[in-house]
Amino acid sequence: MSDPALRADAARVLADLNALRAIGTYKSGVHKPTFSAAHMQSLEWLAARLPEAHLSATIDGIGNVLGTSAKGGPKLLAGSHLESQNHAGWLDGPLGVVYALEAARVLNGHPGIDGAVEVASWCDEEGHFGSFLGSRSFVGAVTEADIDAARDRNADRSMRQALQSAGLAGRPRITAERGRYIGYLEAHIEQGERLETSGLRIGIVTSIVGIWQYRIRFTGEQNHAGTTRMEIRKDAGLALAKFCVAIDENFPKLCGPRTVWTTGSIALDPGAPSIIPGGAEMLFQIRDDNPAVIDRLEEKLRGMAADVTAQGQVGIAVERIRTGAPALMNDAFQDAIEAAARTVAGSKSVRMPSGAGHDAQVLSTIMPAGMMFVPSIGGISHHWTENTADADIVTGAEVFVETCRLLLQRAKVRPG
Amino acid sequence: MSDPALRADAARVLADLNALRAIGTYKSGVHKPTFSAAHMQSLEWLAARLPEAHLSATIDGIGNVLGTSAKGGPKLLAGSHLESQNHAGWLDGPLGVVYALEAARVLNGHPGIDGAVEVASWCDEEGHFGSFLGSRSFVGAVTEADIDAARDRNADRSMRQALQSAGLAGRPRITAERGRYIGYLEAHIEQGERLETSGLRIGIVTSIVGIWQYRIRFTGEQNHAGTTRMEIRKDAGLALAKFCVAIDENFPKLCGPRTVWTTGSIALDPGAPSIIPGGAEMLFQIRDDNPAVIDRLEEKLRGMAADVTAQGQVGIAVERIRTGAPALMNDAFQDAIEAAARTVAGSKSVRMPSGAGHDAQVLSTIMPAGMMFVPSIGGISHHWTENTADADIVTGAEVFVETCRLLLQRAKVRPG
Repeated sequence: MSDPALRADAARVLADLNALRAIGTYKSGVHKPTFSAAHMQSLEWLAARLPEAHLSATIDGIGNVLGTSAKGGPKLLAGSHLESQNHAGWLDGPLGVVYALEAARVLNGHPGIDGAVEVASWCDEEGHFGSFLGSRSFVGAVTEADIDAARDRNADRSMRQALQSAGLAGRPRITAERGRYIGYLEAHIEQGERLETSGLRIGIVTSIVGIWQYRIRFTGEQNHAGTTRMEIRKDAGLALAKFCVAIDENFPKLCGPRTVWTTGSIALDPGAPSIIPGGAEMLFQIRDDNPAVIDRLEEKLRGMAADVTAQGQVGIAVERIRTGAPALMNDAFQDAIEAAARTVAGSKSVRMPSGAGHDAQVLSTIMPAGMMFVPSIGGISHHWTENTADADIVTGAEVFVETCRLLLQRAKVRPG
Repeated sequence: MSDPALRADAARVLADLNALRAIGTYKSGVHKPTFSAAHMQSLEWLAARLPEAHLSATIDGIGNVLGTSAKGGPKLLAGSHLESQNHAGWLDGPLGVVYALEAARVLNGHPGIDGAVEVASWCDEEGHFGSFLGSRSFVGAVTEADIDAARDRNADRSMRQALQSAGLAGRPRITAERGRYIGYLEAHIEQGERLETSGLRIGIVTSIVGIWQYRIRFTGEQNHAGTTRMEIRKDAGLALAKFCVAIDENFPKLCGPRTVWTTGSIALDPGAPSIIPGGAEMLFQIRDDNPAVIDRLEEKLRGMAADVTAQGQVGIAVERIRTGAPALMNDAFQDAIEAAARTVAGSKSVRMPSGAGHDAQVLSTIMPAGMMFVPSIGGISHHWTENTADADIVTGAEVFVETCRLLLQRAKVRPG
């Protein structure tokens, strides 16, 4: 990479990210739920930039943006997503899209580069309507019936209604042309504090952990909060609270070194201050890159549930509603990121699993895939205070462009 | 009560209650939120019955129904409410209204009775818009600004909008004519299992317990459920669960013999499965007829909150949002109910406090008030399976009519 024309343009990268932050701004972050006006405007913004990278832009029928090259030679697919969690950060998604755009701008028109970087923005990575619907559509894993059934978790509307409002109804969905790509590369903020606390600049993702999710329902007896003596109550909400505390006590004895678990949602039924809850429900999630750990924890979870049932006061049902499988990142892609980090980031890199899910895990089901992280300040994400130092953003862009260059160069020698 | 014309008409009482159940039926109960079509139709039904009891009917600007007598002599006010909790029972409210109607029908036209029973249905006893808004309006404790501020807890609308939709906007509100009444009498289902398990027919209410309510907020750190290690999390939801369990462990050591406490509502913020809750809120209620017990429990609650704060992980704020005061029922009214139960219910009565709040506690602030209970099957209430045996409904009606007769008769001798 001695040619300075093969280097990322730091000012352009920062300007693009700030342009995307200016669409749907919320405090220092953004609020861009999938198919919101701000999200759609962001997709249009990207589509308008792609010709600068010698790419033809298409926004497809599920809201994926694809930039396609007419150039010969190897094609590397790169991207991330442009919608956000509600009231969340400016970099979660846009960072990877802008890096991909920058790599395409730097490499696709350069006479010394054979092949091209093609840019993608996958719709709804943040799961407002489902689970990785955009990238899963691209790999052929979403049916029309899936779309019929999908609903907006923020509002009382179907995905069909949302597609209609967004002007996407009736457009075809683009699926991957098999064999076209040497693979998929994605950059993302780490969303944890490991890089920051170690003074490192680049995370080389080895695998993306699987997510196992459970709906746990408690059934007690709804009754009047004033007239029902404490001794005869069957309070489903209290049973839920006790279960959360029991998880907190038992899981640390059985988990792996990086296992995490979360109760993100609790609802009491009917949820009124003067009524003893007859029902209660929690959404509970476990993440690990080792399915054997999950097996152990799920067995404990079900054992604890059996204990609750055995006490005979409150019924409990544990339903697994999402079954994860860790996705392994391609070794050659990991090596390329490491080599690039050696060249432009003083080897300040580390191989690490990703605790968060990403579109790369979906793309990895049909092509080699790789991911790299840049540091997150304080490890904060999914919140509007999420941030990364400008210097780290720029270093990441340089490593990303160089990784793309290396992957295209190596593909000439030993394709796919 | 040797005159059979002074006895409640069992078939008429049961027919009336079933007629009200047929309006807004839900399974074997009803769904009649305040100002719903079913609620308004129930008010019209009552207004149409009142002339049978020699009463002129008015539905006022807050949805109270008042039946007024032109007769001379003492006036006894009697009633309850016609709206229900959501998807709740058929007797919670209507029982007391139909008993009052029956007493008025039996007594107001009888030549041997001096004075009259006047019938009231108080709006929103169940608190869809506030706390006892109907009866509090009648005693002069609700301002126009209170109504401006009130909102529907079931829907995104103001009380003003609901009054408009119900056709009540602009009507005057009726307030109590001071000195008109010898007092207020209300019948209700017990909503507990004390009468049933003791084989008794009538509860004579000695006092209505106070309700103290708290909003307890936990502030942690919102973060990503996949990338944030367990050791550094500040999970507001888990802190809330631990707090509920700590209440469950500590309160039994400090409470009185009839204290009850309930966490009826829990909300996590943002409440998504992949986000560690940064905020959590619970509504917590304590009921007792002894303020000293409440003082002790509230002190414990605040001490537990201080312990949470001292641990330094999660912030907690305990805000008292409702301050109860037990309402004492009038001795002469208790004696009259007991005497009536001796005559028509074989003395199968007991004096007992009410764990639930009732409009009688509001009326007791401006006139002598009394309450009687009939048994609840299985103690169930605020649920559509709530029920009372027909025989108990009929006995209750007979005791109620006889109590009204005794109170009017005694008022002649020693008024007020």
